[in-house]
Amino acid sequence: MRLSRYFMPILKENPKEAEIVSHRLMLRAGMIRQQSQGIYSWLPLGKRVLDKVNGIIRQEQNRAGAIELSMPTLQSAELWQESGRYDDYGKEMLRIKDRQERPMLYGPTNEEMITDIFRSSVKSYKNLPLNLYHIQLKFRDEIRPRFGTMRSREFVMKDAYSFDLTKEGAEHSYRKMFTAYLRTFSRLGLRAIPMRADTGPIGGDLSHEFIILAETGESEVFSHRNFVNFDIPAETTDFDDVAALQAIFDQWTSVYAATSEMHDAAAFDAIPENERLSARGIEVGHIFYFGTKYSEPMGAKVQGPDGKEHLVHMGSYGIGPTRLVPAIIEASHDENGIIWPASVAPFDAVIINMKAGDGPCDAACEMIYAALSKAGIDTLYDDTDDRAGTKFATADLIGVPTQIIAGPRAVVAGEVELKDRKTGARETMTIEAAINKLTAAK
Amino acid sequence: MRLSRYFMPILKENPKEAEIVSHRLMLRAGMIRQQSQGIYSWLPLGKRVLDKVNGIIRQEQNRAGAIELSMPTLQSAELWQESGRYDDYGKEMLRIKDRQERPMLYGPTNEEMITDIFRSSVKSYKNLPLNLYHIQLKFRDEIRPRFGTMRSREFVMKDAYSFDLTKEGAEHSYRKMFTAYLRTFSRLGLRAIPMRADTGPIGGDLSHEFIILAETGESEVFSHRNFVNFDIPAETTDFDDVAALQAIFDQWTSVYAATSEMHDAAAFDAIPENERLSARGIEVGHIFYFGTKYSEPMGAKVQGPDGKEHLVHMGSYGIGPTRLVPAIIEASHDENGIIWPASVAPFDAVIINMKAGDGPCDAACEMIYAALSKAGIDTLYDDTDDRAGTKFATADLIGVPTQIIAGPRAVVAGEVELKDRKTGARETMTIEAAINKLTAAK
Repeated sequence: MRLSRYFMPILKENPKEAEIVSHRLMLRAGMIRQQSQGIYSWLPLGKRVLDKVNGIIRQEQNRAGAIELSMPTLQSAELWQESGRYDDYGKEMLRIKDRQERPMLYGPTNEEMITDIFRSSVKSYKNLPLNLYHIQLKFRDEIRPRFGTMRSREFVMKDAYSFDLTKEGAEHSYRKMFTAYLRTFSRLGLRAIPMRADTGPIGGDLSHEFIILAETGESEVFSHRNFVNFDIPAETTDFDDVAALQAIFDQWTSVYAATSEMHDAAAFDAIPENERLSARGIEVGHIFYFGTKYSEPMGAKVQGPDGKEHLVHMGSYGIGPTRLVPAIIEASHDENGIIWPASVAPFDAVIINMKAGDGPCDAACEMIYAALSKAGIDTLYDDTDDRAGTKFATADLIGVPTQIIAGPRAVVAGEVELKDRKTGARETMTIEAAINKLTAAK
Repeated sequence: MRLSRYFMPILKENPKEAEIVSHRLMLRAGMIRQQSQGIYSWLPLGKRVLDKVNGIIRQEQNRAGAIELSMPTLQSAELWQESGRYDDYGKEMLRIKDRQERPMLYGPTNEEMITDIFRSSVKSYKNLPLNLYHIQLKFRDEIRPRFGTMRSREFVMKDAYSFDLTKEGAEHSYRKMFTAYLRTFSRLGLRAIPMRADTGPIGGDLSHEFIILAETGESEVFSHRNFVNFDIPAETTDFDDVAALQAIFDQWTSVYAATSEMHDAAAFDAIPENERLSARGIEVGHIFYFGTKYSEPMGAKVQGPDGKEHLVHMGSYGIGPTRLVPAIIEASHDENGIIWPASVAPFDAVIINMKAGDGPCDAACEMIYAALSKAGIDTLYDDTDDRAGTKFATADLIGVPTQIIAGPRAVVAGEVELKDRKTGARETMTIEAAINKLTAAK
């Protein structure tokens, strides 16, 4: 992408409304724009990151056997009256009347709708286990939306729903998602700690929140320090292997970790003092097993091997992509801007033409841009007539992993400089070597 | 994907509510499910097709230089009061009040919001031309939603918006989208005819609808028969070449074509009778040039090369992916079901195990499934214990281009049968030859 033809409205000033670093950097880098209170557009740079985050979530959901569909944003109030949650949900639910005066709502979650889809088409245990998910907009009318897309009103959620014949089956389904979440957050460059959590308005009796430690986090969390030593489950994990997933779950739940709502001070105090971790965290995922809470009032039953009808056991599993993007920034930035993990960087590399309009400099940059693009490397080419200092600042701000700096003198000698955004290390090398280094890493 | 682990709720009976063939087949194949009047879930098979349609649209938009972002579904009423459309839009606009009693709406289109984004960040003609698009849910509260996702209330739209310094520049931007649309519909397996059209509530003085001929279409259209002979613009088209795009536009607008609102009976009657086409059609795209209709009331200006401020000239360009899916089916089906063009088929191939549980049959199917999956061929493996006749009917219904039929006797001889869904042609060949044929075509 040529920057001269791109749309990346960089802010030079720090926006006053941003209280936390991720919100400030997302606004400054032109990733998002507020349209109404708690409602954001994702501008092109932000959209690229969001798409990469969604792509990783999707891959790991599919690997764990979940199947993607897409449910609508608007739901009928009737469905929620069936489960009894229509009156319970309070003012966070955005209630709407259509032109026929029918009561509708903008879905804050989809337990009722997916249960309705399930009961209308699945009749036999032979079709179980089943896990259906979508990545879709939700709306929760928060009284105090803040921190940009970290706590917005319209947001994207990946929500998966599992259906099993038995409680034991459902617990295995729960551990599949538990394992998939560990892998997902790790691939996003995050170390997330699963913590026993309150079930809130979703209900049920088994629940974990996945928490990233960050000073700006809204949750107070307590855990053992051991989590940093646990291995992330491998790509080759067999999600049908009940014992293997049990072992992963047992390890990750073997030491103390709880959010403030579930905190047990006595158990925490029993941990040696230097192994205790009391910190603030950001919730990036939340999983629930809630048995027959929805299948019972809504009549979601299948015929079992015994020929009788059984209520299905369900769980639901949420990740918030539009919250993950700022969470990644909270975990990875410096005073100059964002430092993207390679897996979610909006571009793999940025070419900085230090003197646009200079013949040899332009020619070298064009050649590098063509070679990298051909090799499938997402490249941003800063071909604008801005000063070199402005270009360096922009490249650091937007956090692209590798900068290729082409100056008018160096290119005549056939050389460019490569800068690693994360370490700041710079290396001068031939243009050919620079291209080879980037294409080899792809 | 193993069918035994998939979620594809086939209906055996013809659903009574479906008046047109695409709606009937989408319900029968388990592609969609109605959740409320005019509001649908896209079940896994439908979601796959929709994703492929969106992928082609996205490729062609990017090729034409449009840049993707994502605007939210909910908008503030204030924006629409600025343009004057808040009161004009009528009951099709879904109006909402949030918990603070602020008037909001579910966006039926995004001219106001994109103009707001533009005016807040683009100040110079140097950043033009610019074309921004998103693929996002819209809501139009139709009084009579019908024909499934062909005319639904919540639907997906790709909407692009162009910004230019001059009318001439804007006309070139218009021809870029005109050209991209011809390529998009062609890649979807459709022959779309651009017709002079009414501008309706979007406004402006230049507009084309892209129409697919179909008996079930809601529009009455009149055109010259010559359209079928025009070439689709090549992949190598240079979208910056003003003369080349002008030539494409001139050819495609050189003969008579109009919707009933713009019909000129005298001009039509001047066409020799055997070259006249009077038919019904489905609108699958609509493009508009509307000059300063929004930039003027909303104050979207840039500084020109003359140092003065100029109102930008705008256009907007819509395609409805959730309508295109049924439109493709209307154009391509037979009495047994859907016949997908390869570019949007939910799977490239389906393996039909005629006798699941039979050792050699299972082994052969597993081997083929592994080989095709490894080669990146999207394969559905019907490993269920249904009767062979049921499996054949399902494969025909869901319209996957190639069926690989593995029978217990044939596999012992190392053979399978390949059936082409479109032609019905069947060919017996060795398993190796079948795999090679499919992988070579990929």
